[in-house]
Amino acid sequence: MANTGDDRRPKYQRIADTLREAIRSGEYGPGDRLPGENDLMATHGVARMTARQALSVLRDEGVAEARKGAGVFVREFRPLRRQGIQRLAQQQWGNGRSIWSADIENRSLEVDQVTVSDEAAPDRISAVLDLADEETVCVRRRRFVLDGKPVLLATSYLPASLVAGSAITEEETGQGGTYARLAEIGYKPVHFREEIRSRMPSKAEATQLSMSAGTPVILVCRTAYTDEGRPVEVNEMTLDAASYILEYDFDA
Amino acid sequence: MANTGDDRRPKYQRIADTLREAIRSGEYGPGDRLPGENDLMATHGVARMTARQALSVLRDEGVAEARKGAGVFVREFRPLRRQGIQRLAQQQWGNGRSIWSADIENRSLEVDQVTVSDEAAPDRISAVLDLADEETVCVRRRRFVLDGKPVLLATSYLPASLVAGSAITEEETGQGGTYARLAEIGYKPVHFREEIRSRMPSKAEATQLSMSAGTPVILVCRTAYTDEGRPVEVNEMTLDAASYILEYDFDA
Repeated sequence: MANTGDDRRPKYQRIADTLREAIRSGEYGPGDRLPGENDLMATHGVARMTARQALSVLRDEGVAEARKGAGVFVREFRPLRRQGIQRLAQQQWGNGRSIWSADIENRSLEVDQVTVSDEAAPDRISAVLDLADEETVCVRRRRFVLDGKPVLLATSYLPASLVAGSAITEEETGQGGTYARLAEIGYKPVHFREEIRSRMPSKAEATQLSMSAGTPVILVCRTAYTDEGRPVEVNEMTLDAASYILEYDFDA
Repeated sequence: MANTGDDRRPKYQRIADTLREAIRSGEYGPGDRLPGENDLMATHGVARMTARQALSVLRDEGVAEARKGAGVFVREFRPLRRQGIQRLAQQQWGNGRSIWSADIENRSLEVDQVTVSDEAAPDRISAVLDLADEETVCVRRRRFVLDGKPVLLATSYLPASLVAGSAITEEETGQGGTYARLAEIGYKPVHFREEIRSRMPSKAEATQLSMSAGTPVILVCRTAYTDEGRPVEVNEMTLDAASYILEYDFDA
């Protein structure tokens, strides 16, 4: 970063900068223990409180995390790569892979906390799905867990009248999932819009995703459309930002 | 969120939930003043410390922000919409609009702090641009400011040997910008990869982007390729997450 290295910055900030740079350069890799308070006091000739503040800057940024009684460690960032475009390529729907398996290669992504219910549509969903007054939605909630760590919460909304009687209203949607079932009933999704935001998690989200302090969530809202442009699903996803890289490949 | 409304949660959390829900429902809109400590004490029959904690939950989440002496207000979220795919459509390059103008409609996005220099390539850039040992890069840094508020930092890296002598090495790249100049010298970018992450900002980033507390940054790393698949530019962008929605539209 330009314009930041001047000497008027507080000492703990400058120590934090030095450590951050050492992490960026690879001197300390993911999972490595950072110098402790005593080390920093000796190296930089500062008081314990200054050393502690320096480490806490890196913790607040999510670059490092404290482990009880063991010290402060470089955060492990071994994220999932979620490919927005290839991932939804139609050839993947039919052959037994869920749309998610392309993201994880040899790591096991499990789905838990699946619930399906018929509910009144929130206003924003009603607007996007172009629902009539009082029209309800089939709401599918689930959580994705990687190697025991929850990484993503997803809530899909589909017009209840459209999916009534299909396996979309059941917990197990069967091979190819919701999109394969939509195709079978004549509403194959072919156009997609993904909107992405990021913010700090609510306490409830942080709990459900077992998140560390100083980590934001990424919000991905995906709308799926048929070839006539009819919106058939809105999927609101909340991702632990420490667990994901999103990727989009496209042509000019 | 499911499974969170039970009554064993601390009172300040439940008050925060009530306020958050009132914000989501639109009862309090962007920029509205939230009930103060005295109001919350009276309404919920709690101590001042509890009321204060409730408001600080919303501040920490970035949902609300304190204004000195005036109270706590719902954060204004009036983001830019950055369209990843249409935005780069080639027809926009030539006709006098920068690739950014599609994002902002009638709002004025200004570029400042432009610097251009010839530098040693960081390892990750060397790897992506497939550079020879010791090959340097043309580094273009700049900041984008919306209505006086900085919203995005961008650093582009291009192989120095490839762009030598072109306007890409000057502060003003001319109409159509870097991509139009690349096209003129025979390296038209036609394929793009965008990778997206989110984390808390470093102190330096927070300062450069004038960010409020409790707000993450979105990192977008875009790589541009010619039709032969040669990588010609890596652009590392740091976005104030409170200022942006990213949008990608695509077909299955």
